[in-house]
Amino acid sequence: MRELSLLQHIYAANAEMPAAVVIPPGDDMGAVRLSDATLLVTVDQVADGVHFDLACDPLPGIGRKAITRNLSDVAAMAAKPLAAVAAVSLPRDFGQDRAEQLFDVMRRTAAAYNCPLIGGDISIWPGKLLLSVTVFAEPAGVLPVLRSGAKVGDGIYVSGQLGGSLHSGHHLSFEPRLGIARTLGSTPALRPNCMIDLSDGLGCDLPRICQASKVAAIIEAEKLPIRTNCDWKNAVGDGEDYELLFTSDKLTPAPGSIDGVAITRIGEIVPLSHGPVATIRFQDGRVLDLSQHGWEHHS
Amino acid sequence: MRELSLLQHIYAANAEMPAAVVIPPGDDMGAVRLSDATLLVTVDQVADGVHFDLACDPLPGIGRKAITRNLSDVAAMAAKPLAAVAAVSLPRDFGQDRAEQLFDVMRRTAAAYNCPLIGGDISIWPGKLLLSVTVFAEPAGVLPVLRSGAKVGDGIYVSGQLGGSLHSGHHLSFEPRLGIARTLGSTPALRPNCMIDLSDGLGCDLPRICQASKVAAIIEAEKLPIRTNCDWKNAVGDGEDYELLFTSDKLTPAPGSIDGVAITRIGEIVPLSHGPVATIRFQDGRVLDLSQHGWEHHS
Repeated sequence: MRELSLLQHIYAANAEMPAAVVIPPGDDMGAVRLSDATLLVTVDQVADGVHFDLACDPLPGIGRKAITRNLSDVAAMAAKPLAAVAAVSLPRDFGQDRAEQLFDVMRRTAAAYNCPLIGGDISIWPGKLLLSVTVFAEPAGVLPVLRSGAKVGDGIYVSGQLGGSLHSGHHLSFEPRLGIARTLGSTPALRPNCMIDLSDGLGCDLPRICQASKVAAIIEAEKLPIRTNCDWKNAVGDGEDYELLFTSDKLTPAPGSIDGVAITRIGEIVPLSHGPVATIRFQDGRVLDLSQHGWEHHS
Repeated sequence: MRELSLLQHIYAANAEMPAAVVIPPGDDMGAVRLSDATLLVTVDQVADGVHFDLACDPLPGIGRKAITRNLSDVAAMAAKPLAAVAAVSLPRDFGQDRAEQLFDVMRRTAAAYNCPLIGGDISIWPGKLLLSVTVFAEPAGVLPVLRSGAKVGDGIYVSGQLGGSLHSGHHLSFEPRLGIARTLGSTPALRPNCMIDLSDGLGCDLPRICQASKVAAIIEAEKLPIRTNCDWKNAVGDGEDYELLFTSDKLTPAPGSIDGVAITRIGEIVPLSHGPVATIRFQDGRVLDLSQHGWEHHS
């Protein structure tokens, strides 16, 4: 397997680039013309042994996830994807066929979300498979929704269902919530005060919102939209849900669903006190520190 | 070592961001305001066992290279760096101290070239150290110099000296040729017809220019600016020179030096024939296929 022949395969498949791509793959840099002068950018890695298991997971799912994981960050800002670049490190014994399959899936996934891959770097190395993708996005008329806007009294909402992502395969097949996020961000009656995507689990990501906003949060355990065959600990701690978590003082009552995806009110933003920034309350009166049940990627 | 405490270390060190960074690190995406509506972007990886040897190379040199390698691509376009994001995969036993040292060097190096790190992703994984950096740049008044503009009759020029980069440590300490490239790109009497940075060696990168421009090239072996203790094979095949390679029909005579760095005419662009796209000619009359002496990163 040679880098050059892989690149030729990729370039050949890039014949139809959107008109906004003014320098397509094949030069030292790719270039894209922006319709807005503010650029948003995010980078995420998916690594064998951390975010997938090359021995078990299907290759198309892995390539897809390398793109959609970043698009979930774009959704968290209520932004519009613009373009992507990928850095891929291939094990020496990976083989040309599988490499081409992987790049094809990445390119097709990116294109399907109007986020063309405009550049990349390939290394063949004495290590495991690692895909690092950088995605650019633009506000495109919707002010980005930050993590820092939560206010005391806000309801706390999530899209979809939580828990069991790794076992159910959701972590490979999930749909980044781009459309829902744009609807939320662009509709005055719906616009959240803050938003994040749930990549590390509610127990890890809700405290991030609280810290950025200088507030605390209480979750009601019985309100959690828990995936079948999961319990509250899965919903709080499993991670990789890639659902939207947001707060709002406007959604009374909650919209119920957007684009066919459930929107559930799960708790409330409260003032900072001396206790944990995020707690979960059960119907029997127990209250636990939510952050004790968060998740960092296998580290 | 925990991802969160590493991130806090990085954010804490990010107090002074340029005014152009409208969303600094710490949210789902970083954002930067552009003064020009065209964005340039490049991504490059540096990997243990391929682009450095963690057991031997100094950590500051490794972190520096992760940034400067991308900036060499920016130079190749005659562009102006704007911002960077980094994805870093750390071995499990890497340790917090070394991780912080690494991020500090990356941040300081990026800042020194007016290219602030505005986001990133850290994984701790059962693999080797890998740094993937994406850099954004803007034309800033200088039309990007592509690989595809070489014309028959153009002189072929390189900056600096070639060969022996790995043994001399040049691959860690090299200066990306940003200033020289801007001078070349913005001065009508100097502006190249095409340009590339020499990352994989003249034997690999010159054919890239030829293929993109649909021309051929002849190098004169005795004209090569060869580093001390190296021979022509090193100059053609070692790689990692990170010098500028460009062609021009205007530089008669060659400027000799720009910003104190030698600019050397090493050959000429000729029409495509049935032979190799790039050849090297010796004073004794021998002519060899240059591409047989190029280098792909240890693959």
